[in-house]
Amino acid sequence: MNFTGSHILSIEQFERADIQRVFDVADAMEPYALRRRVTRVLEGAILGNMFFEPSTRTRVSFGSAFNLLGGDVRETTGFESSSITKGESLYDTARVLSGYSDVICMRHPAAGSVAEFAQASRVPVINGGDGANEHPTQALLDLYTIRKELRSKGRTLDGLRIAMIGDLKHGRTVHSLCKLLCLFDRVQVTLVSPQELSMPEYLVEGLRNAGHQVVVTDNLQTSISRIDIAYSTRIQEERFTSKNEADLYRGRFRLNQSIYTEYCEPNTVIMHPLPRDSRQEANELDNDLNANPNLAIFRQTDNGVLVRMALFALVLDVVDQVEKYSRDVRWYNALRNQV
Amino acid sequence: MNFTGSHILSIEQFERADIQRVFDVADAMEPYALRRRVTRVLEGAILGNMFFEPSTRTRVSFGSAFNLLGGDVRETTGFESSSITKGESLYDTARVLSGYSDVICMRHPAAGSVAEFAQASRVPVINGGDGANEHPTQALLDLYTIRKELRSKGRTLDGLRIAMIGDLKHGRTVHSLCKLLCLFDRVQVTLVSPQELSMPEYLVEGLRNAGHQVVVTDNLQTSISRIDIAYSTRIQEERFTSKNEADLYRGRFRLNQSIYTEYCEPNTVIMHPLPRDSRQEANELDNDLNANPNLAIFRQTDNGVLVRMALFALVLDVVDQVEKYSRDVRWYNALRNQV
Amino acid sequence: MNFTGSHILSIEQFERADIQRVFDVADAMEPYALRRRVTRVLEGAILGNMFFEPSTRTRVSFGSAFNLLGGDVRETTGFESSSITKGESLYDTARVLSGYSDVICMRHPAAGSVAEFAQASRVPVINGGDGANEHPTQALLDLYTIRKELRSKGRTLDGLRIAMIGDLKHGRTVHSLCKLLCLFDRVQVTLVSPQELSMPEYLVEGLRNAGHQVVVTDNLQTSISRIDIAYSTRIQEERFTSKNEADLYRGRFRLNQSIYTEYCEPNTVIMHPLPRDSRQEANELDNDLNANPNLAIFRQTDNGVLVRMALFALVLDVVDQVEKYSRDVRWYNALRNQV
Repeated sequence: MNFTGSHILSIEQFERADIQRVFDVADAMEPYALRRRVTRVLEGAILGNMFFEPSTRTRVSFGSAFNLLGGDVRETTGFESSSITKGESLYDTARVLSGYSDVICMRHPAAGSVAEFAQASRVPVINGGDGANEHPTQALLDLYTIRKELRSKGRTLDGLRIAMIGDLKHGRTVHSLCKLLCLFDRVQVTLVSPQELSMPEYLVEGLRNAGHQVVVTDNLQTSISRIDIAYSTRIQEERFTSKNEADLYRGRFRLNQSIYTEYCEPNTVIMHPLPRDSRQEANELDNDLNANPNLAIFRQTDNGVLVRMALFALVLDVVDQVEKYSRDVRWYNALRNQV
Repeated sequence: MNFTGSHILSIEQFERADIQRVFDVADAMEPYALRRRVTRVLEGAILGNMFFEPSTRTRVSFGSAFNLLGGDVRETTGFESSSITKGESLYDTARVLSGYSDVICMRHPAAGSVAEFAQASRVPVINGGDGANEHPTQALLDLYTIRKELRSKGRTLDGLRIAMIGDLKHGRTVHSLCKLLCLFDRVQVTLVSPQELSMPEYLVEGLRNAGHQVVVTDNLQTSISRIDIAYSTRIQEERFTSKNEADLYRGRFRLNQSIYTEYCEPNTVIMHPLPRDSRQEANELDNDLNANPNLAIFRQTDNGVLVRMALFALVLDVVDQVEKYSRDVRWYNALRNQV
Repeated sequence: MNFTGSHILSIEQFERADIQRVFDVADAMEPYALRRRVTRVLEGAILGNMFFEPSTRTRVSFGSAFNLLGGDVRETTGFESSSITKGESLYDTARVLSGYSDVICMRHPAAGSVAEFAQASRVPVINGGDGANEHPTQALLDLYTIRKELRSKGRTLDGLRIAMIGDLKHGRTVHSLCKLLCLFDRVQVTLVSPQELSMPEYLVEGLRNAGHQVVVTDNLQTSISRIDIAYSTRIQEERFTSKNEADLYRGRFRLNQSIYTEYCEPNTVIMHPLPRDSRQEANELDNDLNANPNLAIFRQTDNGVLVRMALFALVLDVVDQVEKYSRDVRWYNALRNQV
């Protein structure tokens, strides 16, 4: 894909080489995200951070990524304006808002709305999540995190062994991850969920057609013993006929330090798209894992900044200029030594 | 008017030479708005973008205009703070907030509130709309757009032929436009509305006293055949005794491509203050006009950025320094070739 | 205290020398706050301005202070995100959000929440108010204002004569002020309140243990005749058994120009944490005091910017570099001559 000026709407746009390109640029962004250096390459550029549905962390992550490249951010949160509710078309909204910025990140509750918006926009649009449809930067940051965690162990995405755990029927992030994994070789995927919440068949087929080994199960303990990544998701109580039924499933898919120690290989990496529900009755990843250095859930969100910086730099075609407009950091920097 | 340090509260402040000055500066802002160049002339300055009533596009337009000059933006949306509802006077609010910024843009639902706020403010205040009263930057961007569209045809505001169409009784934008047109010569104004929604008499008188030719009618087709500008506004259903009655009017004032082709001179420019209601039953400007190059509604909102940049540059007295602190754009620039 | 990298959670952290340090740095910030000069020392740094409870003025004050040092601001207003309400722990929120910024200012309705958040944060956290607990920057700006007002009269905090007036039972600001005054010598404190709203005994004890002279009274007139500072607070009607009873108290503690002229020494300084209730029935500080040059309430909020700039500069360790990255202001500057 030619990134310059492109909309980033769906992970379906990405071929393996595109993924590689995004990840390499994300790697190059690390000194700036960790404040070893500051760059002002996008000084004067404006991100229109249009969140027609609230999502603090995704919104702030996009905004910070743009600031880290030197650009300014104008944003909206929720359907504050009545223009859309008064019958304004997405076409009009897009034509107007795209006159105020150089690139737009948009989140919207309606599936397909971001693509419709992008068609009328005069500047590149990045999908920040459109309902049940797509959230491509989340998918990319997940895969980027897996790659990074594997690399520190001398491994690659080819040959990955991963278990996806929890509500695999409704989880947008695990669906995207399945699609992305089809671009790689020899992946072993274990899908751990109650039968009622199993991964949609077309995604399982996709994995198998890609030559991957897929195991479908509802037993957590037997599934996590020989994997590189345990990707946990939330069990959504509201999908069940009763709270009691939901609790049964949750009991089985709850991961804590003692289960980890008993069943997992050393250094098995734990991931989760966040937020994790830390209330007693949910608690899919127990807080006692917080001390476990293989809990990668906050490295995931940190990596989100890198991936979003990479996409901005690619779409606005400044990858080669980031360093040129950079300098050392002048202030106290708590982030410097975190990776 | 001496712009430096002045509040911009009402179009009544503007004489013809002032309008000319704003528009000339707006023209000079175009290379920056189109990202042919970047300027940092207001680097370090802060806009207090105080929207006590939501209006995404106006808020973002002001904010982007300030960013494009290099300044930072702090803002508020809605009556988030309970200070005002707890009995704080506008005087106090103004005194406090004006200590946080170099210039304030304020929108407020109460007519007159922005002027009251400005009296206590220690920095210049620009009215971003105060209820039914004034929205001077909208009026200026409308007139600026008319001037620009005419100029591309070798014409000027003197001698303009314009039809204002729709709800002329309640439309704040057409009221302001009537006042501004009184500053120019030999204007032909056709006021097209149902009788119940006709332009207030004092504004019609004003136009006539300025020597302009005014025709009042409720027939769209006969009104749009010899005009330069068709300025359409929304028919507000809630003003009528019944939806059916409203629909009757809407039927008559709906402009689409076939009506345009049949009745208008070639190159008649179509304007609208936006948002336009694109729902089937309203649809004052049909979507089939989107392909018509004379549909200027998005050039209007683009021009809004230029006009707001011009006002900031004038009020903060940096017009002469904008270029000095400028340089080329470094990033992919989709906007460059749009004008 | 070593400010570099520290959280600023409570005034209890501050010793006298720390206060002195903050105030000296705040003094040094004045040329930048008044736009005699601009500094870009924090260019590239990001403030996470996390307001989980609305407070426009505090939020904008922190944001502007950070912008004035050259940094960018990403922010949130209210519990927009459902992550927290969905059971996410403050630990997780802190870990995630601290990956997006270099320093965080947090306001939250729950007492103790900011300290809990800070414990998990990977960057310094400044308490912007956590419920009934603490609002340290308000306390510091109050004391800074007192010091500055006294200094212009050749006086110091040692030897201060102050009356605190109104609801001393619930007022977070006067509680903090009492604690801070214990760090100084020979202070005379007059506590003026209805008996039902008197200062908590432990704070009175604290003042006495510090060697200060404390008078407790419910008579306003006799209390304000020999003081340097009259610090007025709101009488909170909702705390009384009836509106009539509240009105009785309010009648006695209302300060206006004629009472000031009759009872106060010349140049007695009037302060208030704001917002003041300007409605007829409340009106603890009458609007006729607005013309009184000793009304310092807006100098308080202006000073808030200085104190917040100082804290950012100290925590991020750039105090010595502020001037190096500075230059003259280029734009019209209404603030220049206000102090």
